[in-house]
Amino acid sequence: MKRIFSLALGLGLMLPTMASADDLRADANAVFKPIPSVVPAVKDNAVTHEKVELGKMLFFDPRLSRSQIISCNSCHNLGTGGVDAGPTSIGHGWQKGPRRAPTVLNSVFNIAQFWDGRAEDLKAQAKGPVQASVEMNNTPANVVATLSAMPGYVDAFKKAFPREKEPITFDNFAKAIEAFEATLITPAARFDQFLEGSETAFDEAEKKGLRLFMDKGCAACHNGINVGGNGYYPFGVIQKPGAEILPLGDKGRFAVSKTASDEYVFRAAPLRNVALRAPYFHSGQVWSLEQAVAVMGDSQLGEKLTDEDTKLIVAFLKTLTGEQPRVEMPILPVRTKDVPKPE
Amino acid sequence: MKRIFSLALGLGLMLPTMASADDLRADANAVFKPIPSVVPAVKDNAVTHEKVELGKMLFFDPRLSRSQIISCNSCHNLGTGGVDAGPTSIGHGWQKGPRRAPTVLNSVFNIAQFWDGRAEDLKAQAKGPVQASVEMNNTPANVVATLSAMPGYVDAFKKAFPREKEPITFDNFAKAIEAFEATLITPAARFDQFLEGSETAFDEAEKKGLRLFMDKGCAACHNGINVGGNGYYPFGVIQKPGAEILPLGDKGRFAVSKTASDEYVFRAAPLRNVALRAPYFHSGQVWSLEQAVAVMGDSQLGEKLTDEDTKLIVAFLKTLTGEQPRVEMPILPVRTKDVPKPE
Repeated sequence: MKRIFSLALGLGLMLPTMASADDLRADANAVFKPIPSVVPAVKDNAVTHEKVELGKMLFFDPRLSRSQIISCNSCHNLGTGGVDAGPTSIGHGWQKGPRRAPTVLNSVFNIAQFWDGRAEDLKAQAKGPVQASVEMNNTPANVVATLSAMPGYVDAFKKAFPREKEPITFDNFAKAIEAFEATLITPAARFDQFLEGSETAFDEAEKKGLRLFMDKGCAACHNGINVGGNGYYPFGVIQKPGAEILPLGDKGRFAVSKTASDEYVFRAAPLRNVALRAPYFHSGQVWSLEQAVAVMGDSQLGEKLTDEDTKLIVAFLKTLTGEQPRVEMPILPVRTKDVPKPE
Repeated sequence: MKRIFSLALGLGLMLPTMASADDLRADANAVFKPIPSVVPAVKDNAVTHEKVELGKMLFFDPRLSRSQIISCNSCHNLGTGGVDAGPTSIGHGWQKGPRRAPTVLNSVFNIAQFWDGRAEDLKAQAKGPVQASVEMNNTPANVVATLSAMPGYVDAFKKAFPREKEPITFDNFAKAIEAFEATLITPAARFDQFLEGSETAFDEAEKKGLRLFMDKGCAACHNGINVGGNGYYPFGVIQKPGAEILPLGDKGRFAVSKTASDEYVFRAAPLRNVALRAPYFHSGQVWSLEQAVAVMGDSQLGEKLTDEDTKLIVAFLKTLTGEQPRVEMPILPVRTKDVPKPE
């Protein structure tokens, strides 16, 4: 009897914790999804090995910018979480862009691209910065001329687009970059391990942080596979942050939709690997995750988070750092005298 | 008798070619040396795995520049022969440097570093661009502060310099970069295979090109393991090229030695992988190897090379392209809020 009683008592003491961990996992799985360990399929663009290899070369090739010193990787640096040092990017002629570079990592899972979602997918996105006068400042015609003048690219485009008569086009340039970017996913974060049932992935603080993240309302916007990146919301839904964080001149999605209700609306930031990506927000003016969480509490939840709660939420956010893609620097095609010169 | 006669005749016909190939190889081996397949030792700086890994991170980290967007790899791009697109590099604030970036590949074999040899080795060289106001525009103190604020670097310096109490110093920063750069060698060029006895490495044109390269006098300056990079010579020893190629304001080694005879003296360009590195010369104003060879004929040899000879010499120069180093992009230490901000 005594023994059975002890056992029952023991179980009774253990059950609440176990039940709460399981509840937490069940609740989390209803809101989030793990990053897969395989490269996802992309709409209208089969991800082949040849396309990925070509896209990798294009991603790292500064000769696709007018100055020939800026590549995709300059602002979406794979060594630093897929972003640059910020606050906003520096482009052609040392011009400063209006917004922080968004990360390229896991961007294939976003609902649309750019802070305001103005590109529907990565192949549309890839055509933007290369032409933007404050970024790479090139033209589609000059990109095609540059690529066509290097036999290494002529071969690589033929292999990547084997059924096309003239494989070197600006569309195919964008498709190859999209294919490479689809491989830039970061699986196996501790958060993914927790979602998938690991008992050891999270410590107590991280569990409390996840619970707070859901219960306080953060997960209302930051949910799904990318813990954000899948919907549009006003920045300052409760209280607008100061103009240093939310510059008045940048009305976000309003510029895309021309709809009054879209003023200061942005895509919810995807929070995967967020600990690698200071400074925060589209203005890149907040240099610590603690401050970023506090700003979100004020502006989106209308709640001054305690230091303790902030700390716990930050502890949870740090579990979102996944395996970073391991990429071998591509050896780029040799320039010929017919490649347009840098300007 | 008839048969023996035929055999003798056959041998007679074959022998001159065989002998000439062997003579060519013997002559070449008296002047040049193959690139080794192992990383060479470096003076006063043991090349350890830990130092190389640290040096690789430093080489790729743009946060070591004042703007935090320029890394060593920006101008010494490992994907394009260890140089940038030229003519001269663009640095902090979009300033243009006075000379073309020299290649980092095989630079460990040069007699000294920079076009004028003003740095005696790679650890001395590594301290230059990071401080130059037209390049990375940083200070040693700010570099040390930046590195010290990232736990990932604190650990990596401890591992690379295990016996030192304060491993993060500007000297050690330079030593780690030197150790990484010592690994950036390009063995197994067809030229190396020829030197080492391969019968199939060179075709007839390439053999003729090598013979011309030695007989015309090119090898008087461009010799040794790097086919150059090991001595100083006046540019325009016979006839000065035009000011677009040899700008009058840049007197080369004269600025280092203050000796009148060093006016317009430069280190002979190392020609390993030269086919990957247009545009040519310290001014970066010559966009084809054919034109570069012709300029050298006029200015250094006082001889107008025929188109045919130029073509053969270029065919030989293309055999100097070796195996390019395969480098995995390092995942860089995470910035903390204590890292100095970009300026």
